[in-house]
Amino acid sequence: MDVYSNLKKKGISVGDLIEVSGLKGILMPRTDFSHEDVVVIKLSNGYNVGIKVEDLEKIKLVEKLENATGERREVEEEFDKNKPIVSLIACGGTIASKVEYRTGAVYPSYSPQEILNFVPEVREIANIRVKKVFEIFSEDIQPEHWIKLAEEVVKEIESGVDGVVITHGTDTMHYTSAALSFMLRNLPVPVVLVGAQRSSDRPSSDARLNLLSAVLFAAKGEIAEVVVCMHGSMSDEYCLIHRGTRVRKLHTSRRDAFQSVNSKPLAKVDCFEKKIEYLVEEYRRRDKNRKVELDKKINPRVGVFYYHPGASVEHLKEMKKHYDGLVIAATGLGHVGVNPYKDVFSKNFLPAIKDLIDSGIPVVFAPQTIFGRLDMDVYLTGRLLQKVGVIGNGCDWTIETALVKLMFVLGHTKNMEEIKRMMQENLVGEFGERSES
Amino acid sequence: MDVYSNLKKKGISVGDLIEVSGLKGILMPRTDFSHEDVVVIKLSNGYNVGIKVEDLEKIKLVEKLENATGERREVEEEFDKNKPIVSLIACGGTIASKVEYRTGAVYPSYSPQEILNFVPEVREIANIRVKKVFEIFSEDIQPEHWIKLAEEVVKEIESGVDGVVITHGTDTMHYTSAALSFMLRNLPVPVVLVGAQRSSDRPSSDARLNLLSAVLFAAKGEIAEVVVCMHGSMSDEYCLIHRGTRVRKLHTSRRDAFQSVNSKPLAKVDCFEKKIEYLVEEYRRRDKNRKVELDKKINPRVGVFYYHPGASVEHLKEMKKHYDGLVIAATGLGHVGVNPYKDVFSKNFLPAIKDLIDSGIPVVFAPQTIFGRLDMDVYLTGRLLQKVGVIGNGCDWTIETALVKLMFVLGHTKNMEEIKRMMQENLVGEFGERSES
Repeated sequence: MDVYSNLKKKGISVGDLIEVSGLKGILMPRTDFSHEDVVVIKLSNGYNVGIKVEDLEKIKLVEKLENATGERREVEEEFDKNKPIVSLIACGGTIASKVEYRTGAVYPSYSPQEILNFVPEVREIANIRVKKVFEIFSEDIQPEHWIKLAEEVVKEIESGVDGVVITHGTDTMHYTSAALSFMLRNLPVPVVLVGAQRSSDRPSSDARLNLLSAVLFAAKGEIAEVVVCMHGSMSDEYCLIHRGTRVRKLHTSRRDAFQSVNSKPLAKVDCFEKKIEYLVEEYRRRDKNRKVELDKKINPRVGVFYYHPGASVEHLKEMKKHYDGLVIAATGLGHVGVNPYKDVFSKNFLPAIKDLIDSGIPVVFAPQTIFGRLDMDVYLTGRLLQKVGVIGNGCDWTIETALVKLMFVLGHTKNMEEIKRMMQENLVGEFGERSES
Repeated sequence: MDVYSNLKKKGISVGDLIEVSGLKGILMPRTDFSHEDVVVIKLSNGYNVGIKVEDLEKIKLVEKLENATGERREVEEEFDKNKPIVSLIACGGTIASKVEYRTGAVYPSYSPQEILNFVPEVREIANIRVKKVFEIFSEDIQPEHWIKLAEEVVKEIESGVDGVVITHGTDTMHYTSAALSFMLRNLPVPVVLVGAQRSSDRPSSDARLNLLSAVLFAAKGEIAEVVVCMHGSMSDEYCLIHRGTRVRKLHTSRRDAFQSVNSKPLAKVDCFEKKIEYLVEEYRRRDKNRKVELDKKINPRVGVFYYHPGASVEHLKEMKKHYDGLVIAATGLGHVGVNPYKDVFSKNFLPAIKDLIDSGIPVVFAPQTIFGRLDMDVYLTGRLLQKVGVIGNGCDWTIETALVKLMFVLGHTKNMEEIKRMMQENLVGEFGERSES
């Protein structure tokens, strides 16, 4: 039985207050995955429930609501020439997700317009132009998506907007923010990635604060860089703005999962007071006369080898079949086993690394510890690794940023000396010149 | 010219205060790597320098010191029956390292006796028995070393000591502490791993505080588990005791690099006041009547696949050539790309993971975020992954602990159901029953 069609015939439509099997709630839109015989209602406590309907007569219209959540809540789009213009580009993720009522799992299926409907206050800050680019979870984002996304951002910026907000899943948001940082150069306005740790249709969602803060920063923020805007604490107080190459998801579920690594956040956004506080002095200032440049040359064939006791030398060697460049998540200051003492149990990864580099596969180190800076001058191990051409000494980049940068650099050259030069050059603030923590 | 032999002939030996080319300092022992024409002296500021000697006449004896640093400073070993007995097992690492004067790099070459000579105060706490097991950096430690080390610890415990201290490099100390936690069961006394972020012969070394605290905890601490004892802050104030399965090196260079992940440290040690403060209530109490059990069955053939945009499905598939089990460092709550929407750019890792599991290779997830707990019920992706048999839902273990546990479990069974059962059972506190952070 197609409940929604039948309800329509009875004059009941999405947004109406109804009663089903004794439960009162607002009729929510059907999801792509709902069974035909399930209706979804939002209870007064904010929770959505899916109810299997066996008898249509059990559904009663309580009230036709004008301002209920649902399709009818579409906000009128009135252009206010006194307000800045912000483009909202949607890529899916939790912020665009709702509970999938067949299984109870969450699925990314809100349009940008629907996302806005959850947070109508954003229109008080700026005129919003919406555009959907993908509708996927961020674990499914691939380097090819970064290119598509970068192209869309450029189009929006060239149309003259005051800032761009990208809604994105949080799982790989820091990979995307690093990629866009390398690909979008000479930015005139802020490009702000934002997500949510809990889906927008849940009462506990962090989507609202994050989205409001992101739009505020895109509209009014002074930092014309690719940044991430997410909760700064565990409660709904303020958001932090992190540099795209220096941020990392550091918790599976907390609202303040995103943190700047080996650097300070750039700014603090209080969207209630509409206040932006800058926490650093060095950043690229907003300048609408600047012309954005798109550099989308990228080679996605880069892999990660996570070094550990028991790691196989043969495994490392074989990775060259799958990748054109490798990042090794190394221990401590930048080490892997090199067994200088010829210990009977230890392994020597040096010859394999040398072979990779000699055959044209750059090997870049990043710290497995996440925090801190590589220093491959202190110990014998680091010195031996440098001697065979390992890149990364002195860098405090994350595994993720090193990976994305290597993809970018390999999109530009295959020459090992040139790769080394570009990797060691601080292109967009991807490593700190000295440690701050 | 062999300077040291020539100096001996002149009546100058290690430990004497000498003057070389205008620099005054205590003559230090020759290192294995010193050139014959170099003398090493410790300056009054604590730094060691190596000086190339072209003319023996330029070296002058200033004073024969009785208590200088060097060979003569060997502490008399007097057994005090009123003090506890602690075994000190040395495995190399920075705490046992000195600067290698030929290159300036650091090399692990102190004996346990020499380490003790740097911190003679440990003898005020306990009678110390020393034993050297390896003399290597911890990036060279392999699972086979864990077995050897576990056997040595058991021997020491069975001889009746009150606690065991293991000096170990910091790079992989958390892998070793996890491994010993699984292998050493029913411990009667504390087993304390300790290291240093800066070598013992540097004035800024953290070795002294760490070693004193570790010996104090081994001698007097109430927690009969495998623990890590390292700096609790950036200054020389106190150490923290971390559970062996819950600790991780989280900074390349800071003294307080080791932190308990998703759990609280177990105790705080103030070695100046000789005070131990317990920070949790649940731990195994010291009981010398208990008999330690050694379970050294372990299969080191486990690898890590670090998932990321651009990761290759073929790479994952081929890992079964090198490993009998895999840990996937997954994004967010426990995800990899599964592309349920058949997006043109996205990849689907599900079939490869299913094939691995079906062919007897267990696939265990751990959070790439490091902090937080996996929850593979929330999103469609997690549900699909669980359906093909991925292990790890609900766990808040680190990548490292998941890896070591899988090695341990694979040492005991090849049966997939049994592997799953053991992995999901909390054997030695390797995951928290509920999240604390």
